Amino acid sequence: MGIGHAREHTPADNRTGGPDRGQESARLDGAAVERAGQRLASRIWRTPVVRCEPLDARSGARLWLKAENLQVGGSFKVRGALLAVEHLASHGSRGVIAQSTGNHAIAVALAARRYGLPAVLVLPGDAPPAKVQRIREAGAEVVTTGTLLADRVAVVAELRELHGYDAIDPYQNPHVIAGQGTATAELLEQTAQQGVGLDAVVVPVGGGSAIAGACLATEGRGVSVVGAEPEAVPALTTALRVGQPVTVPVEYTIADGLRPDRIGALPFALAHRAVAAVETASEEAIADAMRAAFLQARLVIEPAAATALAIALEHASRHGVDVGVLLSGGNVEPSLAASLL
Amino acid sequence: MGIGHAREHTPADNRTGGPDRGQESARLDGAAVERAGQRLASRIWRTPVVRCEPLDARSGARLWLKAENLQVGGSFKVRGALLAVEHLASHGSRGVIAQSTGNHAIAVALAARRYGLPAVLVLPGDAPPAKVQRIREAGAEVVTTGTLLADRVAVVAELRELHGYDAIDPYQNPHVIAGQGTATAELLEQTAQQGVGLDAVVVPVGGGSAIAGACLATEGRGVSVVGAEPEAVPALTTALRVGQPVTVPVEYTIADGLRPDRIGALPFALAHRAVAAVETASEEAIADAMRAAFLQARLVIEPAAATALAIALEHASRHGVDVGVLLSGGNVEPSLAASLL
Repeated sequence: MGIGHAREHTPADNRTGGPDRGQESARLDGAAVERAGQRLASRIWRTPVVRCEPLDARSGARLWLKAENLQVGGSFKVRGALLAVEHLASHGSRGVIAQSTGNHAIAVALAARRYGLPAVLVLPGDAPPAKVQRIREAGAEVVTTGTLLADRVAVVAELRELHGYDAIDPYQNPHVIAGQGTATAELLEQTAQQGVGLDAVVVPVGGGSAIAGACLATEGRGVSVVGAEPEAVPALTTALRVGQPVTVPVEYTIADGLRPDRIGALPFALAHRAVAAVETASEEAIADAMRAAFLQARLVIEPAAATALAIALEHASRHGVDVGVLLSGGNVEPSLAASLL
Repeated sequence: MGIGHAREHTPADNRTGGPDRGQESARLDGAAVERAGQRLASRIWRTPVVRCEPLDARSGARLWLKAENLQVGGSFKVRGALLAVEHLASHGSRGVIAQSTGNHAIAVALAARRYGLPAVLVLPGDAPPAKVQRIREAGAEVVTTGTLLADRVAVVAELRELHGYDAIDPYQNPHVIAGQGTATAELLEQTAQQGVGLDAVVVPVGGGSAIAGACLATEGRGVSVVGAEPEAVPALTTALRVGQPVTVPVEYTIADGLRPDRIGALPFALAHRAVAAVETASEEAIADAMRAAFLQARLVIEPAAATALAIALEHASRHGVDVGVLLSGGNVEPSLAASLL
C-alpha cells in the first residue's frame, strides 16, 4: 500500500519512506518547526516578504507575500529536503529517491548534491521541462512515469528496492513537513518584526506538505490557515468533506505543482483539525494571479503559488486585515509565462 | 538653453527646473542622502536585497541585488519624486511637470497624487505603453513628443509657462538626486546588517540620477561605483572621454529607461570625480540578463535594470567579491517580456 492508497492518516502510515530512517527523530509540533528553522538558518535564504499596493487594493486586505519563489532551488521545498537528506546522510544512507511533481525533486536533488548522495527522482510524464532540467543540472537522475500519484509511488517502491536507496516522501516525511513549516514560521516572524500580527495565511495545497507545515507553525497563535486548491484537483476539499483522504478524478490544471490527486495522510491529519478554510481557484483566476504577480508585484511565480495568490485576491478580506500568502515557488515554464503575458 | 544643451555642469545649470522652488534647500552630499532616507522611510518600501546562487556562479562574485523593481510605482524613482514634490507642495506649487522616459514620470504622477497636485508628464513617442498607462492610472496627464531628450525639454519649457507649473528635472533636481541616492544607501545598510561590506555597486546610467545618487551615497566608504550603459547610448562613457556632457547619436536600445542621449550636467559633475568605471552592454547581453533575472532570480526587471545586471554578470569579479546591483525598476512591457521568454 503506497501513500496514494493510504486508508489511515497517521505518521506511521508512510510506506514510501523506506525503513523509517527519515522519521524516528522528529515529533511534529510547533517546536519541531522552530528547531527546523534554527537548523536551516545558515543554509537557505531568508526570503523577503513583499508588499504590493495594487494587489492590496484588489484584495481589500494587506497582503504579505512570502517570496519563496526567491528561495534556493526556486521553491520552499528545499527547506524540508535539506533536513530530510541531512538526517539520512548522517544515518549512513547510500542514496535517496523521491517522487514529486517537480519542486520536491529539485530540492532533494540539490540537498543530495550537498550531502554527497546519489539521487533518483520520479516525476510525472507531464512535468514542466524546466523543472526536469533543474533536477538534471543538480546532478540527479530523472525517471518519468504516468501522471497519477499512484504511478509515481509504484515506481519509487520498485526503484528503492533496486538501488537500496531511502525514499523521501514529499507529504509524509516528518522532517519534510517540519521544514516546509519554517516558511510560514519565518513569515510570521518577519511580519511580527514589523509590528504586524497576521490574521491568516493562505497556502497552496498539492500533496499537503505546505499546509501541514503551516498548521504546525501557526499552532496556538490565532492565525487562520487557509488552503488554496485548483478547482480542477480539489483533493483537500474533497477529503475534508468525506472525512479522509481520497483520490479525486484528475482534471487538467496549469498548476503543475498542485496536481497530486490525493492529499497525503499526515497532512490530512494535521489540516483536518487546524485549517480554517479551503478555497478553490478556477484556471482563469490562477492565470490571472500569475499575470498580476508578474506585472504588479514584479515577481515570477509558478502557477501553484499563483493559486494561493488567486485565493488571497478573491477571499483575503473575509479572513482578516493582514493576510500572509505563501508564494511557494517560481519554477515556471518560460513558454507558459510567455503565453500568459 | 535646456538641459539637453547644457554646457556647464553645476547644480545652477538647471533650466528646466522652474523658478528654483525645487532646489534651494538641498546641499548635495552623503548627509543629504541620509536625511532623504529618513524622510522617505515610512513612505516607501524597504525593498529586499536578493541573492541568487546561479547568478553568483555566472558572475564569479557574490551579487547583492537591490530589488527596486519591487518599489512603489515599480522603480526607485519614487524616492526622488516624493521628496521633490513634497518640497514643491509645501512651497505653494500649483502643479508639477516633468519629462521622462517613463519611470520618473510614473513616480512624479504618484507623488503628485499623494500631495494633491495636478501633474503633466512629457514622454517620448516610443515610451512603453505600460508606462504610459501607469501614469494615467495615477491620474496625471501624459503628453508625448519626439524621441530625443531635447524634444521633451522643449515641450516642458512651453507647458511650464502655459500652466504655471513647476518642473521636476529627472537629472538635475537635487531632491531627486538625493532621493535616488537612498536606494544605494539602503543597499549598503542592508548588506552591512548581514556583515558584508560591498566592494562595488553597479548602477544603470540613463540621464544620470541613479549614478549621481550612488556617488553621494558611497562618499568616503571605499565602495566603487560602476556605471552600466547600453552600447547603443554611451552617454556617460562619451562624456567622460571628452570631459563634459555631450549629446550622443541615438541608436535603438531595448533599455527604454536608458535612452536619454545626454547625461545630465549635475550627474556628470558628480560621476566625473567619483565613478570607478563605466561599462557598456550589448543588446544581446541586456536581453540575456533580463531572461536570467526572470528564470534564475525569479524577478521581473525592465531592460534598464537588466543593463546593470548584464554588466555585473560580465564584469563584477573585476570589481570585487561582494558587488551590489541596483535593479532599478520592473516596469516592463508584457509583450517584450513574452518575446524574451
